[in-house]
Amino acid sequence: MKGFMYPRTDTGKSSILPPTPWHYSGELITFEYRVDPAEVAALLPEGMELADEDPGAIAFIWADWQSCSDSFEELLDPIRCQYKEAFVVIRCKYQGKTYSRCAYIWVDKDYAILRGQHQGYPKKLGSIHQTRVFALGKATPRLEKGGKFGCTLAAYDRRLAEGRFEITAEAEKPGFVNGHPMLHNRWMPAIEGNGTDSLNEVVTMSGFDGQMGRCFKGNIDFSLFDSPVEELTRLKPKEIIGGYWHEVCTSWKAGTTLARNNL
Amino acid sequence: MKGFMYPRTDTGKSSILPPTPWHYSGELITFEYRVDPAEVAALLPEGMELADEDPGAIAFIWADWQSCSDSFEELLDPIRCQYKEAFVVIRCKYQGKTYSRCAYIWVDKDYAILRGQHQGYPKKLGSIHQTRVFALGKATPRLEKGGKFGCTLAAYDRRLAEGRFEITAEAEKPGFVNGHPMLHNRWMPAIEGNGTDSLNEVVTMSGFDGQMGRCFKGNIDFSLFDSPVEELTRLKPKEIIGGYWHEVCTSWKAGTTLARNNL
Amino acid sequence: MKGFMYPRTDTGKSSILPPTPWHYSGELITFEYRVDPAEVAALLPEGMELADEDPGAIAFIWADWQSCSDSFEELLDPIRCQYKEAFVVIRCKYQGKTYSRCAYIWVDKDYAILRGQHQGYPKKLGSIHQTRVFALGKATPRLEKGGKFGCTLAAYDRRLAEGRFEITAEAEKPGFVNGHPMLHNRWMPAIEGNGTDSLNEVVTMSGFDGQMGRCFKGNIDFSLFDSPVEELTRLKPKEIIGGYWHEVCTSWKAGTTLARNNL
Amino acid sequence: MKGFMYPRTDTGKSSILPPTPWHYSGELITFEYRVDPAEVAALLPEGMELADEDPGAIAFIWADWQSCSDSFEELLDPIRCQYKEAFVVIRCKYQGKTYSRCAYIWVDKDYAILRGQHQGYPKKLGSIHQTRVFALGKATPRLEKGGKFGCTLAAYDRRLAEGRFEITAEAEKPGFVNGHPMLHNRWMPAIEGNGTDSLNEVVTMSGFDGQMGRCFKGNIDFSLFDSPVEELTRLKPKEIIGGYWHEVCTSWKAGTTLARNNL
Repeated sequence: MKGFMYPRTDTGKSSILPPTPWHYSGELITFEYRVDPAEVAALLPEGMELADEDPGAIAFIWADWQSCSDSFEELLDPIRCQYKEAFVVIRCKYQGKTYSRCAYIWVDKDYAILRGQHQGYPKKLGSIHQTRVFALGKATPRLEKGGKFGCTLAAYDRRLAEGRFEITAEAEKPGFVNGHPMLHNRWMPAIEGNGTDSLNEVVTMSGFDGQMGRCFKGNIDFSLFDSPVEELTRLKPKEIIGGYWHEVCTSWKAGTTLARNNL
Repeated sequence: MKGFMYPRTDTGKSSILPPTPWHYSGELITFEYRVDPAEVAALLPEGMELADEDPGAIAFIWADWQSCSDSFEELLDPIRCQYKEAFVVIRCKYQGKTYSRCAYIWVDKDYAILRGQHQGYPKKLGSIHQTRVFALGKATPRLEKGGKFGCTLAAYDRRLAEGRFEITAEAEKPGFVNGHPMLHNRWMPAIEGNGTDSLNEVVTMSGFDGQMGRCFKGNIDFSLFDSPVEELTRLKPKEIIGGYWHEVCTSWKAGTTLARNNL
Repeated sequence: MKGFMYPRTDTGKSSILPPTPWHYSGELITFEYRVDPAEVAALLPEGMELADEDPGAIAFIWADWQSCSDSFEELLDPIRCQYKEAFVVIRCKYQGKTYSRCAYIWVDKDYAILRGQHQGYPKKLGSIHQTRVFALGKATPRLEKGGKFGCTLAAYDRRLAEGRFEITAEAEKPGFVNGHPMLHNRWMPAIEGNGTDSLNEVVTMSGFDGQMGRCFKGNIDFSLFDSPVEELTRLKPKEIIGGYWHEVCTSWKAGTTLARNNL
Repeated sequence: MKGFMYPRTDTGKSSILPPTPWHYSGELITFEYRVDPAEVAALLPEGMELADEDPGAIAFIWADWQSCSDSFEELLDPIRCQYKEAFVVIRCKYQGKTYSRCAYIWVDKDYAILRGQHQGYPKKLGSIHQTRVFALGKATPRLEKGGKFGCTLAAYDRRLAEGRFEITAEAEKPGFVNGHPMLHNRWMPAIEGNGTDSLNEVVTMSGFDGQMGRCFKGNIDFSLFDSPVEELTRLKPKEIIGGYWHEVCTSWKAGTTLARNNL
């Protein structure tokens, strides 16, 4: 049986995911701010602790991507290479090392959900939008002081998050919260429904061949809204750190299992 | 950490899935036909064999569901309880017993994808439609001889399957292919990308409190179309068995692991 | 050039609308309540007045439709026959006669937008959901005392309206607000952008071959939410009249022009 | 009553369109090729003739837009400013002058449909995708020789058109078919359903403050597919002219009525 992910067949042609590596080109808008560290702690499983420094700092990030496999075929059938995501990154300490960790994430394509599951991102479907930059005209911000951007996230017909970003200056890097290797859990409950997990792993990973392009910082305004099936409003900003727009590319091939079955 | 599935938090409120049991009420249209048994064999992992009788018989099924958790809250926020699916069922023999097995499946909500993953259904997103029955007027088939229904499936902006069904008579049951306990694999590739799986289980399951309502059989016309990321056209009908429309309900709580790591 | 609506070609095959008559089969949920009559008056163009009796009564209605042309072809390609709508109906007096009038309406298909424009319904796109009734199981209300339904409307990733309805008893008819012939305007601004209209008609219409099926009344709970591009919250309930669920069919062929260019 | 387009209220706040001018910033991919001139003639109403030169030349164009009103508010709520379109442009001669004319067009937002109707574009809803250019990485073409792009159009779950474009060199302009003032009809059938039109205008228009940015030409591959409700396959390429990628901005305020009621 072939196929990186399901469905597996004798050819693997219909697998929802092609084999790694996967390549990404995108534009990101990052909202960094502080919440009560207890709210970050509430997102950490046993064995993970708050980061030593600035433990309440989190990042809410919007990303507008093209991505493809090593065949590059997806680039010519663009409904298969374009997707958007919005995600919440926290930091934690595990076995003495500081990691970034995705606490919540929404994407708008099924292959993106499945890639995320492989990597331990807790992906749901959402409707995600961020203002783009075009070269000409009045219907676009410019990449310069005063350029204004909006970001929105919705799921199940409710708006969940909304941010506005206005460029003040060029920046060295797009914040610090999402800057460590990722530390994720991969869980699958046992089919017996007995409260145990059949899959229970702590994994870490980083991309390769990453590059950062233009990067700007600026002022932000950020709001979160209620939903009966979300708990984002627990992460309302107490103190703003800042906002960032930047270009990025990366490729991803594999990660490392740090623990299995809590061992 | 609480939450049946990810994300897990101290409350579990934002888990993409509520705990089981899950309840389902729906209407299904089934297209049963025969393909070359070699095409069914190509969909079976090691350890599973073709069914002894009529091994090339398969079912392509459309389902129009409402489903909910034991809280029943989803029923009052209907975007969270309504979904559609189209799926291919084959049969196989495993450890001497005959099972039904879902080879391909498309749904239109993220929670449906995740429930399927828990159960071993290889779910993708699709656009799924089937003609409904209304009580009055000219814009509906009637549940009687001559009632005509259409079913369509698309993914990534390509139509993948199309069926037409015309009622000829009442029926005892909606075919035989989807009538056994399900036998599914639950796979998750190792994060190391080394060709091994971190999760590799053979599971079986059945619903409970199932009931069948009105059931009709009839004539069918069925077509499959190409896609660069599917292999459905390998399952083009060689011989038609028949078509069925029926009402059904079921609930689902848990299954049983039959094998793990190929043991 | 042939084609009921655009595009018009030598064949008319690609017209976004087939010729009338159009046939409809559906299920509706109606929320009737009173608002300040001044808010109804604010929705009436010159020449139309408030209804003499109960002028602040309005109806917010959800409809789950199949519809088709006289070819009935759409019924076998169900993505072309199924659509949902949510709409606000007010009443008014015009030339001494009482009419129903659609003040706001959202649908989820383009052909439904265009049919509405022909009829003078001010249609926008929305995401519309209402709980359905299935024959069996726990994931459905029953058509009897205690049966509970939810209705939601969203547009541009914001939830705009939400209603809940619980059956108390059978009913004779589904309210009174939507019970008169419709009185609509058909407007098209002049291309010169000079504030005048090229099309400016008052039209009236009714369906034919209409039938009402099962009909129930009950208690309701109803909420409206803000949006920067809507003004629905002006229509928040001051006093509840009641709620209704009913089956209906109708056909529609043509209407009558009552005035043109304000004459 | 205020509101550029419906719904009209005392405030105009909920009008599906804000007042003109409207501003556009975008990236376009153009496929120019020749068809049998008889197929172009079949798309022209009485009074319009084939262009004198190269009458069978047409353009199939994909556009990826941000657009906004003079308030610029839409740019900060990007679901309200981003849309895509795919459209067919032909040329014609009317009253001795050569015009461009949109024969078919699909967009993915309701406000875009309505703006099109005001301007005489025969807009339907579709699913439209074109490869984008990012600054970095492997998941993007570069704006240089060898850069490859894909374009797709689907409606009602059927893929209708697919094009591939590969840059060969910089270009002066993006073809010639879409280079004239537009000549459109604005039609609305009489509500009486008697085969006459209540609105029947020939209008012409051009944008203002237009600018062209980077422009490239290249080789193309182009395919059209069948649908029961389209006639695009009549426009299959007989001879390729060429392909273009370019950046553009424009603003639009008003047009001119050239004829009304065929006079």
